Amino acid sequence: MNITIKKIAEDLQLAVSTVSKALRDSHEISAATKARVFAYAAEIDYMPNPYASSLKRGRSGNIAVVLPEVADSFFSAAINGIEEVAQAQGYHVMVYLTHENVKTEQAIVRDFWNGRVDGVLISITSDAKDYNHLSELATRNVPLVFFDRICEDLNTTSVVTNDQECGYNAARHLIHRGCKKIAFLALFDDLSIVRKRLNGFQQALREYNFDLQQNPILYLTNDERFNKEQIRNILESKDRPDGIVGSVEKVVMQTYDVCREIRLSIPNDIRIIGFSHLQIAHLLNPSLTTITQPAFEMGKMAASILIKSLTKKSSMIRKEQIMIPSVLIERDSTK
Amino acid sequence: MNITIKKIAEDLQLAVSTVSKALRDSHEISAATKARVFAYAAEIDYMPNPYASSLKRGRSGNIAVVLPEVADSFFSAAINGIEEVAQAQGYHVMVYLTHENVKTEQAIVRDFWNGRVDGVLISITSDAKDYNHLSELATRNVPLVFFDRICEDLNTTSVVTNDQECGYNAARHLIHRGCKKIAFLALFDDLSIVRKRLNGFQQALREYNFDLQQNPILYLTNDERFNKEQIRNILESKDRPDGIVGSVEKVVMQTYDVCREIRLSIPNDIRIIGFSHLQIAHLLNPSLTTITQPAFEMGKMAASILIKSLTKKSSMIRKEQIMIPSVLIERDSTK
Repeated sequence: MNITIKKIAEDLQLAVSTVSKALRDSHEISAATKARVFAYAAEIDYMPNPYASSLKRGRSGNIAVVLPEVADSFFSAAINGIEEVAQAQGYHVMVYLTHENVKTEQAIVRDFWNGRVDGVLISITSDAKDYNHLSELATRNVPLVFFDRICEDLNTTSVVTNDQECGYNAARHLIHRGCKKIAFLALFDDLSIVRKRLNGFQQALREYNFDLQQNPILYLTNDERFNKEQIRNILESKDRPDGIVGSVEKVVMQTYDVCREIRLSIPNDIRIIGFSHLQIAHLLNPSLTTITQPAFEMGKMAASILIKSLTKKSSMIRKEQIMIPSVLIERDSTK
Repeated sequence: MNITIKKIAEDLQLAVSTVSKALRDSHEISAATKARVFAYAAEIDYMPNPYASSLKRGRSGNIAVVLPEVADSFFSAAINGIEEVAQAQGYHVMVYLTHENVKTEQAIVRDFWNGRVDGVLISITSDAKDYNHLSELATRNVPLVFFDRICEDLNTTSVVTNDQECGYNAARHLIHRGCKKIAFLALFDDLSIVRKRLNGFQQALREYNFDLQQNPILYLTNDERFNKEQIRNILESKDRPDGIVGSVEKVVMQTYDVCREIRLSIPNDIRIIGFSHLQIAHLLNPSLTTITQPAFEMGKMAASILIKSLTKKSSMIRKEQIMIPSVLIERDSTK
């Protein structure tokens, strides 16, 4: 049972209202009484219910992080960054996983409309088509910051990396290594970050006079079996690609699996570069050339902006994009 | 601005108290008025502040998960399992990282004493020496379930895997592969799971008539540089071990790094087996023989037990250990 104001009042033989006012440091209560109440409250470890005081302030002290998944190394590093900032600022982090299901995302976000959390950090699902559940947050004065997977239509801050440039760099890297036909492994067809990576990829192909029609794009999903079948089909075709850009970590790992199964040697038969935050990319067989995203820093930045807005009177966040660049790290898979 | 009862009252030209009572389905309000209020509340998407109703029920609908870190594949899989159960049951998951610092753990858990969360799932830090911050939860009627890293002194349920048996199996596996001198890489010296894995390891050594003095135990930490130095020292020594049992994922990865640096070949010069939940253990160079823990299932089980207790009148949880076995998966690192 929680220690309540009532118990303090009983033990000190004071009125409940007196104790309550004393704890709020009211001028109506004498300094002597306040001192007695504070001393006793400290002695018995009295702490008010956080949500009782939050209702008065209109703040719960909780912030939400909504992610497609947590198994991906990008998202676990981002949580680390978010948590570091939140802990330092006395905020509590609630983590929600959408599993790439927009219905789940909508149900989760609807729960934020009325004070469950003070603010929201989100990396959206790939299949979101309308964003009413998110725009409603602004109407209800719940600030929102996007990171990584963003929705550009909404009027708020997004923390991103240089996806287009990295798509370009990935393709150019493979072209410089001698690749003549490069496949791009996309995740879904409507995710803004994947679209940008693809745009950069195609820009490089055009600059180097590659025929876009000859360099296939595979639209993969969350279904591992489906993905591997698609990857296998393309790698077993007669005019198979000799280079692959994997737009997210899991499709790169699936490509590694398929190459083993059909005994294609990386990088001799096929060169692979992947967008990934994997800490052990250098320990893979062969070690993987990566576009490494600043996941921890992106999480930290997004949380800082959100929490800063919460300490202001108006919690509205201006529309801007903050870009933290990724790094291409060359390893054996593109040698 | 949130839609409040006051706004509904204004719009329908009713008293605030009437709307409030109607929403609580009070018998004092006529059926006709209640119907009007409900219909209008639905129309304007009115939802009560969750913490206002939670204060009445004494429940916030939030559960806490306290973890040493989130980058480890074990813990991210466990969060997945926890989140799946919580989402299905309408609970919200708050994630806290202790970074193996008991002071952080104490500060976090203290925040749960007065209603921030309805219940707590925890995998404790390695350097916790006293558990007052945890036992106080029981006093305050906040149920607690341990998973993976547990404290056996406390009166509650723990969800674990068969650590001792797996330590035994790991050592026996290396002995069967011909290892004559096996090092055990511990994480800290006082973590219950590591102690159990070590006990099983030493039991196997004794059964096979190995001299315990000749088979070193390394006590590693969170300091990567320190760990690699220790591992390097032992692997460069004249009578270096020919087998290694890594008790947690990160020390195994550090051993892989050191072997590359000093050009020891796995498994020719040294065989390695590790406790790990890494999904891509088969893609490492060489692929890693693992004791794979049922992380997702352990998270699910722990969350189920906690949430079940919350739906009962008395939320006290009985003291028991639930064991979900791990699996040894043989790969090239012990060939």
